Amino acid sequence: MLPTIIDVRRGPGSDRAGGVPVSPARGSRRPLGLAEIALTDGFWATLQQTNAAATLAHCEEWMERLGWIASFDRVADGTIGPDRPGWSFADSELYKLLEALAWEHGRTGSTDVDETFTRLAERVARAQDPDGYLNTCFGHGTQQPRYSDLEMGHELYNTGHLLQAAVARVRTVGVDAFVEVARRAADHVCREFGPGGREAICGHPEIEVGLTELGRALDEPRYLAQAELFVDRRGRGLLGPVQFGPAYFQDDVPVREATVWRGHAVRALYLAAAAVDLAVDRDDADLLAVLERQWTATVARRTYLTGGMGSHHQDEGFGDDWVLPPDRAYCETCAGIASNMVSWRLFLATGDERYADLMERTFYNVIATSPRADGKAFFYANPLQQRTPAEGSVADEVNPRAEGGQRAPWFDVSCCPTNLARTLATWQSYAAVAEPDGLTLLQYASGALRVELDGGGVLGFDVSTAYPDAGTVTVRVTEAPDRPVRLRLRVPEWAHGAVLSEGGGERPVEPGLVDVERLLAVGEEVRLTLPMEPRLTWPDERIDAVRGCVAVEAGPRVLCLESVDLPVGVDLDDVRLDASIAPVAASGGLSGAVVRAQVVTHTDGAGALPYSRRQASAPARESVELRLTPYHSWAERGPSTMRVWLPTVRPR
Amino acid sequence: MLPTIIDVRRGPGSDRAGGVPVSPARGSRRPLGLAEIALTDGFWATLQQTNAAATLAHCEEWMERLGWIASFDRVADGTIGPDRPGWSFADSELYKLLEALAWEHGRTGSTDVDETFTRLAERVARAQDPDGYLNTCFGHGTQQPRYSDLEMGHELYNTGHLLQAAVARVRTVGVDAFVEVARRAADHVCREFGPGGREAICGHPEIEVGLTELGRALDEPRYLAQAELFVDRRGRGLLGPVQFGPAYFQDDVPVREATVWRGHAVRALYLAAAAVDLAVDRDDADLLAVLERQWTATVARRTYLTGGMGSHHQDEGFGDDWVLPPDRAYCETCAGIASNMVSWRLFLATGDERYADLMERTFYNVIATSPRADGKAFFYANPLQQRTPAEGSVADEVNPRAEGGQRAPWFDVSCCPTNLARTLATWQSYAAVAEPDGLTLLQYASGALRVELDGGGVLGFDVSTAYPDAGTVTVRVTEAPDRPVRLRLRVPEWAHGAVLSEGGGERPVEPGLVDVERLLAVGEEVRLTLPMEPRLTWPDERIDAVRGCVAVEAGPRVLCLESVDLPVGVDLDDVRLDASIAPVAASGGLSGAVVRAQVVTHTDGAGALPYSRRQASAPARESVELRLTPYHSWAERGPSTMRVWLPTVRPR
Repeated sequence: MLPTIIDVRRGPGSDRAGGVPVSPARGSRRPLGLAEIALTDGFWATLQQTNAAATLAHCEEWMERLGWIASFDRVADGTIGPDRPGWSFADSELYKLLEALAWEHGRTGSTDVDETFTRLAERVARAQDPDGYLNTCFGHGTQQPRYSDLEMGHELYNTGHLLQAAVARVRTVGVDAFVEVARRAADHVCREFGPGGREAICGHPEIEVGLTELGRALDEPRYLAQAELFVDRRGRGLLGPVQFGPAYFQDDVPVREATVWRGHAVRALYLAAAAVDLAVDRDDADLLAVLERQWTATVARRTYLTGGMGSHHQDEGFGDDWVLPPDRAYCETCAGIASNMVSWRLFLATGDERYADLMERTFYNVIATSPRADGKAFFYANPLQQRTPAEGSVADEVNPRAEGGQRAPWFDVSCCPTNLARTLATWQSYAAVAEPDGLTLLQYASGALRVELDGGGVLGFDVSTAYPDAGTVTVRVTEAPDRPVRLRLRVPEWAHGAVLSEGGGERPVEPGLVDVERLLAVGEEVRLTLPMEPRLTWPDERIDAVRGCVAVEAGPRVLCLESVDLPVGVDLDDVRLDASIAPVAASGGLSGAVVRAQVVTHTDGAGALPYSRRQASAPARESVELRLTPYHSWAERGPSTMRVWLPTVRPR
Repeated sequence: MLPTIIDVRRGPGSDRAGGVPVSPARGSRRPLGLAEIALTDGFWATLQQTNAAATLAHCEEWMERLGWIASFDRVADGTIGPDRPGWSFADSELYKLLEALAWEHGRTGSTDVDETFTRLAERVARAQDPDGYLNTCFGHGTQQPRYSDLEMGHELYNTGHLLQAAVARVRTVGVDAFVEVARRAADHVCREFGPGGREAICGHPEIEVGLTELGRALDEPRYLAQAELFVDRRGRGLLGPVQFGPAYFQDDVPVREATVWRGHAVRALYLAAAAVDLAVDRDDADLLAVLERQWTATVARRTYLTGGMGSHHQDEGFGDDWVLPPDRAYCETCAGIASNMVSWRLFLATGDERYADLMERTFYNVIATSPRADGKAFFYANPLQQRTPAEGSVADEVNPRAEGGQRAPWFDVSCCPTNLARTLATWQSYAAVAEPDGLTLLQYASGALRVELDGGGVLGFDVSTAYPDAGTVTVRVTEAPDRPVRLRLRVPEWAHGAVLSEGGGERPVEPGLVDVERLLAVGEEVRLTLPMEPRLTWPDERIDAVRGCVAVEAGPRVLCLESVDLPVGVDLDDVRLDASIAPVAASGGLSGAVVRAQVVTHTDGAGALPYSRRQASAPARESVELRLTPYHSWAERGPSTMRVWLPTVRPR
């Protein structure tokens, strides 16, 4: 064992921008660091504050309670064995928490957060073997030997998350002793799996994206080369058989030959994120084009209205094209996070706004759906329909996997809470990018930006908005260089009828990117007004599971109907939305909608199958107005059944 | 180890009727034994002959190849250990094969089959411990101790199948040494888990139905009492936690308090079968009523058009009400068999024809779907829609679980082939029952019946029919007592417009049971004509997954559209059935239908999600006639996509 003393100091490696999760080696779009953009209030600021005030400590407490952190101590003191608690990937939960703490410290400078980071990082560091190997599940005492179960052992997966935590540390503090721990772990991986080493990959991609970003952060080309080896080896059958076949961990087809994402969704997306990093840093246009086509094919046929990905419970995986059942939707929170990791990289590489469009959809309707308002319970799966209300309470229990219609404090497989924590701590990093001569605003939230442009001069904005509760986004110029610059704004794909006010005039703008390119005056305002009226959204006819249904959206939010909002005696299955009447914004804010619906009466056949020689339509018994609410808040008001897709009144 | 010499002899315990799988202690309906009814030719005779000629040897070969039978030898010679191949329930596959062989020998008297039975039974017998315990996975050498994993260890499940094999032997041959092995195993279970023993149950119900029937066969009330203990203990949380919660193995709610079947489908149905046995033999009308209500609720909201049960892949389980996705239907072959085990018992107990109706549906559309025509490959899951054609070949491979659109020779979890084998060997046992003063024909196939009525005299019929390829069933009287008797015929629930000809006249008959009650003359014919024209079948509106779709059935068979029958350039997803035009019988027999359909053209959005502000309907480009074929034969002509439920042309 290596008794390392962690020496935290703000070092020379820390990012001038205060830290960014993703920092491509090439390209004209530069992500904004935590020192360049800050949220003040609103939807995401609230989630971020709750994350800081509640979720970080909550995650630490649960991992302490279950002995997952103590496993590191037990490695250090030589008492670990096969009885180590948790799944093989439990180490990664601490690493994701460390990453979240590092970003949170970078965002706020909180010494409390930094002390927590250091305290936990020291326990991790003491568990590192002399050769750099660091894992509490394998290779110590009577445990299974190192790398004896590459298919399902998650060793390199864990290491990948360690590296991502170190990236956060390098970019917010600099190279400290924890970063050196990660460096030794990465070096160990390069020795073990590099040229001349094991010709092998890990069953769960993640080491790849850890290596690309740590390579960028430490300017270490060996790490990128190792990531490239792992990506290139995949899809060639190096992994042994598993129940769901090689597509489960993307070992069926090489990355460059695949046409669509398939298998386990988080695995597929973490792998794709690393592949984008490689394509960018290697200036590999062919690989980038392949990944763009995979994104396009997956979004067109395998993605839910919420942005959620993953249709199967069994393998947490994508289904075939058009397999998008709302009730059995898996839409794992981590898959939403991973999808945004890929889309963000593709946006940075291409500047194509459709990637930011999907990110917004996923932020509001998958990622924001997971945490309970208090930040202490979470959805793991995010189905678009709940048929039975939650039973009992999971207030103080480890949930098998939270499929019961209620958020749970912790899970047997507990990847989502810590993944959320690291994502929320960095939300503003995905809100804007700097170009040499301007800034692009991609996600709207009240806050302040101040950026030294690579083309010279400082550009600063205060953004003021109640988005997504209201559609007006006011961008006030706080600093501007003495030359023409460009303010680019994303008009979301759904925002037909948006209006831009600037320079004394106003004009309609179409979905896409809209530019204000001129000399900007400090104090002047650019105002984007987005249409937030609720709207009907229809599915492609090939999605069998929602044929004959319609959804209602308002702004970036998918709405839903919950049984708690139904009149007494009306069952959720009895509602038929009248699509001939446009939904209207609910009074008391724009966060919901009121629709007109018929209530029908169903009759069960007496002891018969639910199939009939006659096409019977359940008779309508009354017409009602119903309130729909944002999907991301569902189940916050107690046990409920819920639908996003509502059957329509039959055309007569 | 106990070196037992098996002495096969026709003993006093053998059934006068030549063996029946189910023999209630009470009730006026007596199942017909293998000596009382025989198939001559037709649909089920062919399946039964293929089972005898190919499947029985096929199962033995695979189990030998994989070492599953050798495990018994290794217990006997003391070399077994934790390296024993196969899942914990592999023993049960040999027991189900033994049961199939016993019935097959009982049906045909084949000495070859009997020799195979004896050879395999001897190997089983040698593995029995002195105290009656018999299991190759636990309790020997360095294996896990006996009963150390009641949740998932399947020890009592295996024993249950041993007992069922012994039941077949008692009722076809008598009490031989193999039956004594089973008796010792059952006695061991009673000692271990009886009053004063372990207050425990097995995670997979099956011991219960093994004990009830062996108790009946050997006239041993202790076995029924032990089954009763197991059934009554269930639903009280005696089993430890598992991933899918206690409903997975029906340990959530006591049997008498449950309102519907839930959790793992085969587990739920095996348990229900035993509970019906108990309700009947104990004359417990309350329990019987509970089970009838569970059947009714499950059939009304959780059963597929094929009769298939089980909507989830993840836990092989029932879904919530109305969760009946065709593409992700699990509909395990074994669940179809288990459903018929329950329905048969409920029919015997009540005489209600709806149980026989569901059995017919399940026989033709689940059970007959599983085996390939050559009897050497099988479907495990039986989905109602296949979106991608099968890839590659599983000709000589153990399949993880055959979800790829092709039948496989063997499975990692290989419960279905042997379950099919024992079911097909006894198919005629479910075709008719004797009452004191007559016979009821429930399933139609060419064959001969000869029954000594409990009310006196002998009644004999020759049945001649091409059913289900044609609708005429001719019942010729071959023997009849010199007094009025009753011939009762089931008119299936779908058979609107059936006609009965007898006694020189003919009359329309409604679905249900129709009686000919009079003096019957030898040589006279009673003829039932069932309407076999293809018909449209509509789903209950609450089954979200098939909203806007229709299916086509013909006689007892569900039809499907396979891509191999589509014109070149037409994708299965492009077909819209025109429900305003009635389907017609396909030329060349009544086993298919021709429908009129529109072919539409879909367009993917460019890089967009498949959701839109406008309700677009894909434009029709041509009108075609399409051939539908029986679902049970799908994928017999090579890789194909397939649909049972077809979207309809939109009403204009």
